[in-house]
This record gives sequence, structure tokens and C-alpha cells, in this order.
Amino acid sequence: MNLILFEATDLEAPGRLRLSGRRLEHLRTIHRAKVGDELRVGLVNGHMGRAVVAELNEEEALLDVDLTEDPPPALDLHLVFALPRPRQLKRCLEAAASLGVKDITLLNAWRVEKSYWQTPVLEPETLRHHLVLGLEQARDTVLPRVAMRKLFKPFVEDELPALAEGRRALVAHPIAEAPCPGAAPGATLLCIGPEGGWLPYEVDKLAEAGCTKVHLGPRILRTEVALTALLTKLT
Amino acid sequence: MNLILFEATDLEAPGRLRLSGRRLEHLRTIHRAKVGDELRVGLVNGHMGRAVVAELNEEEALLDVDLTEDPPPALDLHLVFALPRPRQLKRCLEAAASLGVKDITLLNAWRVEKSYWQTPVLEPETLRHHLVLGLEQARDTVLPRVAMRKLFKPFVEDELPALAEGRRALVAHPIAEAPCPGAAPGATLLCIGPEGGWLPYEVDKLAEAGCTKVHLGPRILRTEVALTALLTKLT
Repeated sequence: MNLILFEATDLEAPGRLRLSGRRLEHLRTIHRAKVGDELRVGLVNGHMGRAVVAELNEEEALLDVDLTEDPPPALDLHLVFALPRPRQLKRCLEAAASLGVKDITLLNAWRVEKSYWQTPVLEPETLRHHLVLGLEQARDTVLPRVAMRKLFKPFVEDELPALAEGRRALVAHPIAEAPCPGAAPGATLLCIGPEGGWLPYEVDKLAEAGCTKVHLGPRILRTEVALTALLTKLT
Repeated sequence: MNLILFEATDLEAPGRLRLSGRRLEHLRTIHRAKVGDELRVGLVNGHMGRAVVAELNEEEALLDVDLTEDPPPALDLHLVFALPRPRQLKRCLEAAASLGVKDITLLNAWRVEKSYWQTPVLEPETLRHHLVLGLEQARDTVLPRVAMRKLFKPFVEDELPALAEGRRALVAHPIAEAPCPGAAPGATLLCIGPEGGWLPYEVDKLAEAGCTKVHLGPRILRTEVALTALLTKLT
């Protein structure tokens, strides 16, 4: 936790932050904070800055906050991501949030097991928790928006063409002919398939919707490694 | 497992491969292989190619192999990596192996907890297992070499200058002044610190040994995300 994120409702008065629960625990056991210590804090979807510990006991911490900094620039990239298995999903959400992705669409695909859609990780509170962990790691305040599309075809036919239009739209596919390009100005849309890859039918549908097939070289990477490698290459 | 790796001792006759244990299990339950199926196989530190299932039962599989392909190009990069906590170590070894790193030095640092050096993950068989998982994922056959250095100062003073010489030598450090450069011809040496970062003293020692300090931007990334991002940017 390189930044303590809080909500406006955590302010008990203007400039006076009250922490309890997980963040208090972290303050006490990891930071080993004492009265007078200065920490980095940020308001969810707002500014970041410094906070000085004014009071600290086993039930709560009170901090005087001074928010003057903007969060780091966001990636201008919409990630369309075939839903991975729950354990990978957590890590991928944290990695994407830490790398600055602000728009994520979790999509179904043939090789996405139906049971993955039942995972508690997709419950709003848990989803948000993993995004917050990514933001706290990277020192960012802006929560990514996550949409879920449990039907591949209607999303790709009815929504994706509009998302791809005016953007550099790409679908990662190990047997594509073109290599993944480098950073470029403007917005990017990136589709990443499930472990085991997209079906040929799916890749063709994504291409019809405006996405160019690109690969990352001869090595086939795990979803979470491919995610970070693609985001690094493209931005 | 996008490639089944085997040792020369797994050949019961030239061109005739015998599998049991984990690889047989994978063949039966994940690939759901049948007699006549063709699979990708590779000889550890040797060629890759195809294998046809000749016999298959609950105790073993016999495959006819034909090895004609070279493994994918290796990264010309030596990774000096502060030993992470055991769970991260597994994932980092797999990621590094899948991305094509062939030289890894696991190094001590102030923020490496002493207990990490006691993890069973560092036992030769387990270490090798995680490297093999990375190679099987990426379809590569060449095992990375892993060295361990439990003393920071003697390694950095006595060994690192020679490793850095004639190479582009870098140390990743979030508060460095220079951004991480892109791909370049020739060899690279890359030092990555522990969760929480290097001490100023450590970064200075690494710089004295010939390493340039570089950062990845304002976002602080988890070790495993930083590892993939740095390797992608540099190669």
C-alpha cells in the first residue's frame, strides 16, 4: 500500500480523515505509524497528497490531510478481457488497475468456463477491493470502470464496432500475422482472449468488428503476463 | 502446457518417448489425448517438434517424436533479482522463464526477509519445476541458469562489475531520473529490487558497479508486474 485511499465519507471534518478496519491495521502493522508521521493518501476519484497522523489507537486513526496532487495520467486504453479463472482474475484486475487502465469489459468466450461467472470475485465489493489494491500499489486514485458481458456475440456485433471506431483496435492472438505495435498517440482498444486462446470464429468476429489481429512473438504467455506485456508495449 | 518437455532419459529408444507422472496426467486430463493424436514436445536444452501418441494407458504413454525445430530466441539479458517472498518467487520464475530469460541471479537485499532464503521453492527440484512450467507455457526448451547470492555486498563489489562490463547495465528504481529505455542491440543486465525497493545505499552500490538507475514512470508496480513490464520494454 503505497497510498492510502479513502472516500469523502471517511472525512469526519474537512481535512480530517478517520481510518479504521483494514487501512488502520495496515497503518499499525506494516507502516508502524506513530503520531506525527506523514503518509501518502488519496481521495477515490480525486486528488492525492500527504496526511499527518494526529491520533492513533487500536480503534481508529485520525489524520490531517492536504490534497494537492493530481493522480498519474491514465492509459487511454479500453481493455476487453475474456474472463479468466478467479485467482487469475484478482491478479489481472490488480495489475490492470496498477498500470492505469480505466475501462475494462469482462467478456465471455468459448474457452471461459461457465463457473467463472459465479465467482464471488465478481461481486461489486470484491471487484472494487481488488481494483483499490491496484490503485494503492501504483499511487493512483481513479477507479476503473468494469462492465460484464456474458454473451460474446451480442457484445461483439452490437457494441464493439462503436467502441473500436476512431480507436486503434487490436485483438491479441498468438498466431496473428502482425506483431503488436508500440506506443502511439490516441486511444486504443485491446481484446485479450482466455487461457487456451480465442476460437477462430471468435477472432474472425472481433476482426469483423474492426480489430486487427496482433501477436507478441513466438512465446505463448500466461494471461496475466500477456496482459502486462501488451499494456507495456502499447503505451 | 503448450509443449511437453522431456529429458533424454525419458527416451526408451531413439525417437520413442515414455511419459508417466505429471505429464501423463496432463496428457490424459487436460489434452484428453488419444492414440494417434499429435502433440508438441521438446527435449530439455534441445530441439522441439511433434510427437504422435502410439500407446496410452493409466501408467504410461508412448509417443513417437520428431524433433526438427529450434527453440525460440533467448533474451540476451541477465536478470539480477532481489529474492521475493516465496509465492511471488514461483510466479516470477515462471514469468521470467516464459519470457525467455536464461540467466537469473537471486540476490539478497536489506528488504528481503531472511526467512525467504529458507523456502522449499529454492530447492533445486522445485526451482527447476517452476522454470519448466514457464518453458512449457512459452514453448521453449532451454532451462535458465539460476545462481543465488545471499550476501549483497560481495556480489555487487566482486562479481557485478564484470557482469555489467560491455553490457547495457540497469537498475530499476522508482525514483531514478532516467526513464527505462527501449529495445537495443546487445546484451543487457537488469537489477530489480525487493518489494519496498532498494535502500539508497544499495542503489548507490549498484550504480558504482556500473548500473544506470532507470524508472518505469510515476506508478509503483508489484515486483511481478514490474518484472514483465521491464523485460517487455527492454527487449
